[in-house]
Amino acid sequence: MQVRRIVLAKRPTGMPEESDFRIETLELPALAEGQVLLETMYVSVDPYMRGRMAGLAEPAPPYNIGDVITGSVIARVVDSREGSLSVGDLVHAGYGWQTGAVAKGGTLQLVETGSLPASAALGVLGSTGLTGYCGMTQVGRPKPGETVVVSGAAGAVGSVAGQVARLAGARVVGIASTDQKCSLLVGRMGFDAALNYNASDFPDALRAACPQGVDVYFDNVGGPVSNTVLPLIAHGARIAVCGQMSQYNLEQLETTPAIPTLLLNRGAVMEGVQLMNYRAIYPEARAQLAEWTARGDLHYEETLIEGFHRIVEAFQMLFKGGNIGKLLVRISE
Amino acid sequence: MQVRRIVLAKRPTGMPEESDFRIETLELPALAEGQVLLETMYVSVDPYMRGRMAGLAEPAPPYNIGDVITGSVIARVVDSREGSLSVGDLVHAGYGWQTGAVAKGGTLQLVETGSLPASAALGVLGSTGLTGYCGMTQVGRPKPGETVVVSGAAGAVGSVAGQVARLAGARVVGIASTDQKCSLLVGRMGFDAALNYNASDFPDALRAACPQGVDVYFDNVGGPVSNTVLPLIAHGARIAVCGQMSQYNLEQLETTPAIPTLLLNRGAVMEGVQLMNYRAIYPEARAQLAEWTARGDLHYEETLIEGFHRIVEAFQMLFKGGNIGKLLVRISE
Repeated sequence: MQVRRIVLAKRPTGMPEESDFRIETLELPALAEGQVLLETMYVSVDPYMRGRMAGLAEPAPPYNIGDVITGSVIARVVDSREGSLSVGDLVHAGYGWQTGAVAKGGTLQLVETGSLPASAALGVLGSTGLTGYCGMTQVGRPKPGETVVVSGAAGAVGSVAGQVARLAGARVVGIASTDQKCSLLVGRMGFDAALNYNASDFPDALRAACPQGVDVYFDNVGGPVSNTVLPLIAHGARIAVCGQMSQYNLEQLETTPAIPTLLLNRGAVMEGVQLMNYRAIYPEARAQLAEWTARGDLHYEETLIEGFHRIVEAFQMLFKGGNIGKLLVRISE
Repeated sequence: MQVRRIVLAKRPTGMPEESDFRIETLELPALAEGQVLLETMYVSVDPYMRGRMAGLAEPAPPYNIGDVITGSVIARVVDSREGSLSVGDLVHAGYGWQTGAVAKGGTLQLVETGSLPASAALGVLGSTGLTGYCGMTQVGRPKPGETVVVSGAAGAVGSVAGQVARLAGARVVGIASTDQKCSLLVGRMGFDAALNYNASDFPDALRAACPQGVDVYFDNVGGPVSNTVLPLIAHGARIAVCGQMSQYNLEQLETTPAIPTLLLNRGAVMEGVQLMNYRAIYPEARAQLAEWTARGDLHYEETLIEGFHRIVEAFQMLFKGGNIGKLLVRISE
């Protein structure tokens, strides 16, 4: 079988462009014992990939020039020489931006999304959902009645993080880039308030929405949005730094206000969220997210882009705020 | 009895000057039942007072113009109408930069420094020692073999914090402003290394002293020193922000490098140290510090300035790096 894959042609500067990538076609080898042939259904595009393209050594290792852009996919088994996997099974794999692959059976996880569609394994029950859950419960630690602010609130991580805080009894204020996203946050996701950071009165509106200050700030964005939120943190605040979307396409990171002085004055803490640190609670987190979603207590969104040839466009969309919820590219039905 | 006191005449800009203060003389009232007459032995000068002089609302409430500069003192009871206190008793009080005072017996704590001199109640067994102990054990949490860096390491807080880390089995690297201080840190206080940040090779020397990166950074200084340390933090590092001495006399705080991105990439945490949060462990902390000091495992230093008229000079000395260990002004023997 022939497959197509997207490899890194050169390191992007600023917003990644189609010309930073190259499409390759390759012939897959015949299956060996223990292997399966996979056809890609959904490809995930994620902000963390930007740092790997840039060649940064952290938090994830860099892609080298010529490497396929690896990442999470959902695939269907179309041929199998591995006893535990049958044709038609859906699996979670990590081979990335590629229309299909040969894989060892042991490296794959069966998709188990219960009553939810398979795509949920890349979103609310996948890394982004887990990051929202673990980051909020382990770093944010909201208490009933506290005020929680989430930036990038309509994204895959932020929308889960905010709802987890709501379910913990906190008042939740979302920050997003459009009025449409804000309506969704308040209407479908039960946020107490949602603010468009492009509105001219955003700083005043945020202050008005947080009259007691901000006890938890769950930050996916950084930059000017954080510069508006941080002065409002309350004594003893927890700041979970989960992403810095505003910085990923910059050649030079922006400086920040005097964060050490702020944390000292408010007796506050700022912590980077790395999902792998919370591996021990993945089973509990997945079970809880699945239960809440099934009960209708937690609402999730997906933005679905159709077609392998649109993967780079989808990746760009992440940085333009074009998606609501988890951004996926559908490669095959 | 007549006493003298120092009040705030105007808010300092930059380094506080004598002209920012005024000396007042006042006649103390006769003792009422339950009161004692106190003669000041030692006055404490502390960096946190600078923010209160500036009128900042945090972390401590501001001094108003005309207010006496309150803070910790050790005083001797010279007359008593309070049954539990006798003439000659030494007490810990909070009336500040004043040669004596009338106080209610109930507001005073007896000085209990065991075999150590009374002045230790303002230093190694007082707020600065407790801050070093609690900040290091509760926020830094060093493990055996980890690398701990302490800025302002020869100061009252830093010298205790560094030795607490050494006693926990960590490798400790101190940063100070003079070679003399560095010699003391390595020689008397058992630091594994100490670096003068005024040396031209400081960045290289720090990197060489921390080949595995920095697991704990206990920061009293901020500014350029922190900008040199922070890029070296290891994965999972803890940064205890205990002071920002380099910033206290600035009209405008310096911006900082992209701290959220750093914490995100390294899965690290930065936390402001506020002593009051650790009230529950004061007794344990004091007992441990007293035991270590008595056994010779923990060495402390004092810089003693003589005379009430030199209090402001002593306060300035804090910001010029003129002191080693706890800076005290002796008012009477």
